[in-house]
Amino acid sequence: MRKKIGFLGPEGTYCEEAGTKYLKGLAKTRLTPYSTIHQLLLAANRGKIEEAVVPVENSIEGTVGIVMDMLVKEVNLKIKREIIIPIAHNLIAPRGTKLYQVTDVISHPQAIDQCKDYLRKKLPKANLHLAYSTADAVKQVATSIGEKILGRISGHHPLFAAVGTRAAAKLYGLSIIATKINASQNQTRFLVLSKSDYRRTGRDKTSIVFSVGRDRPGGLHNILGEFASRAINLTKIESRPAKKDLGDYYFFIDMEGHREDNVIKEALNFIKKKVSFLKILGSYPKA
Amino acid sequence: MRKKIGFLGPEGTYCEEAGTKYLKGLAKTRLTPYSTIHQLLLAANRGKIEEAVVPVENSIEGTVGIVMDMLVKEVNLKIKREIIIPIAHNLIAPRGTKLYQVTDVISHPQAIDQCKDYLRKKLPKANLHLAYSTADAVKQVATSIGEKILGRISGHHPLFAAVGTRAAAKLYGLSIIATKINASQNQTRFLVLSKSDYRRTGRDKTSIVFSVGRDRPGGLHNILGEFASRAINLTKIESRPAKKDLGDYYFFIDMEGHREDNVIKEALNFIKKKVSFLKILGSYPKA
Repeated sequence: MRKKIGFLGPEGTYCEEAGTKYLKGLAKTRLTPYSTIHQLLLAANRGKIEEAVVPVENSIEGTVGIVMDMLVKEVNLKIKREIIIPIAHNLIAPRGTKLYQVTDVISHPQAIDQCKDYLRKKLPKANLHLAYSTADAVKQVATSIGEKILGRISGHHPLFAAVGTRAAAKLYGLSIIATKINASQNQTRFLVLSKSDYRRTGRDKTSIVFSVGRDRPGGLHNILGEFASRAINLTKIESRPAKKDLGDYYFFIDMEGHREDNVIKEALNFIKKKVSFLKILGSYPKA
Repeated sequence: MRKKIGFLGPEGTYCEEAGTKYLKGLAKTRLTPYSTIHQLLLAANRGKIEEAVVPVENSIEGTVGIVMDMLVKEVNLKIKREIIIPIAHNLIAPRGTKLYQVTDVISHPQAIDQCKDYLRKKLPKANLHLAYSTADAVKQVATSIGEKILGRISGHHPLFAAVGTRAAAKLYGLSIIATKINASQNQTRFLVLSKSDYRRTGRDKTSIVFSVGRDRPGGLHNILGEFASRAINLTKIESRPAKKDLGDYYFFIDMEGHREDNVIKEALNFIKKKVSFLKILGSYPKA
C-alpha cells in the first residue's frame, strides 16, 4: 500500500514544493491536497493520512497561528521534520510569450506585493488581478479565463501572466518567462506532522509548549532557568494568548537537542513539576 | 494648525476604525491614509505626520512582522497607545437590497474565509470574488463594477454585496444587510506610534526589544531574571530572527508598568549591561 501524505493545497503551491522536497527519494508515496489547515490536521489526527506537511512561517499561503493553536490541544500530532525553502516567485505565461507582450498579471495579493518592484519596473502598464493562491492564479492563466472575460468586454486581446511556483508552471504546462522576481529573500518554514516524531540523529531540535498559569511573574524565568543551567540553546520563543482567559498564555519554545538527550530529558522532567500544562511537540533533525 | 495622524489605508478599513476610536474626543485632527506600512512609518519618522496608527496583530489588513522589524532600527518612533477592537464583519450592499437577492459576494480573501460558515449557510449559491482590502471591496460594490462586467458578458443582472466595515458602508453610502457574520471573535491590536510615548497613568505597559548576541544559551534567562526578581509581569514575549545572521535573535517583550516606575527603571538599567542591543519602544496605558 502506498503511504499517504497530505499538504495544504491546491496543487502547485509552495506547500506542495516543500512536500516534494521532503519526499525526494521516498518511493511509493502519494501527496494529497487539503483545502484548509484545519481539515489537513484533523485527517492526520484520525489516521486518514500518515503525515501532514504544513506551513508555519509563511506569508503567502498560511499562518503559524492556526497550526500552533491546533497542536496545543485539538490534535495529538508530533513534529517529525522541518523543511525550509526559499520563496522564489516566477512570472508564468503560455509557451512562446515574450515579457513585453504581457498586459495583465494575476496572483495572490501578497505575492503581487512581494514582486511590486519588478512589476513596476518591467511591466509598468500591466493591470493587476487577484487570485486565492499562487496556484489558482497559474491555473487561471492556463485556462485563459481572464482573456476570455476581458476580451469579450473590450474587444482587444489581453495576455495574462501569473506569479507563482515552478511546480505550478509545470503542472499546467506553462512557461516561466522570468525567475526570482521577488525583492526580498524570504525563507518559509514548513513542518511534517505525524503520529510519532523522529529518532535521534545528533543534530536535532525539540519543540515544546507549556503554560505556567496566570499571575506568576517569575514563572517563565523559572522555567528558562532549567534550560540555561544545562546550557541548552533556545532557538525560538513565542507567547500566544490561551484565549479562554485573558492573561493566560501558552509559551512555544524550540531548543537544540533531542528529547532523548539526557540534558533535555532532565530539564523537561523538572519543568513538568513547575507548569500547569506541558506538551512535547516532537524532536526532529535540524533543517 | 490641525494635527495630522496617518493610518494604513484605504479609507474604510479596520485600521481607520481603530484610528477613529482613538481620536474620539480629539478635535482638530486629520486622519490621512497611507498605502503601505513602510510609507506610513517613514512619514511619521520624518515628521510629515505626528502619529501613525498601525495594525500589529491583525489577520485582515496587516502583519506584525514589518512593524516590529522597522521599530528595531529603521525608525525612531515610540509606542504611545494600544487600541484593541473586535473584528465584526458586515455584509454590505446598495440601499434596499434584500439578502436573498445577493448573487455575488466580494472581499479580501481572509475576510471571506472568516465568514465562510455564514456565506455557505445563507448564500450557498453566491459567486465569491476577491479584492485587495475590505474597503476596496465595498468601493467596488458602490461603483457597481462587478455588475457592469458580469452583466455585459452574461446578459443577466448580478447583485453584489461586500464583506467589510461599518465605516466603509457609511463612507460609500451603502447599507448593512447583515452584521457580525464572522464565526470567531477575533480581536485585533493596533498601535499608535509617535516621536514620544505616553506619561505614567498607573495602569501602563512597556514594550522593549533587545538582542543578546549569538551562542549564549542562558542569555535570555539571565535577562528575564531581572524582571522575575522584581515581580514584573511579562504579557508578551517573541523572538524574531535578526536576518543579517542566522542564529541571532531579537526578543520583543511587553511588561506591565511604566518605564518611569522605579522597579522597571532599575531592571532596564541592569539589562542594558547584559545585552548587545536594547531599545525601549515606549510606555503607554493598557487598552
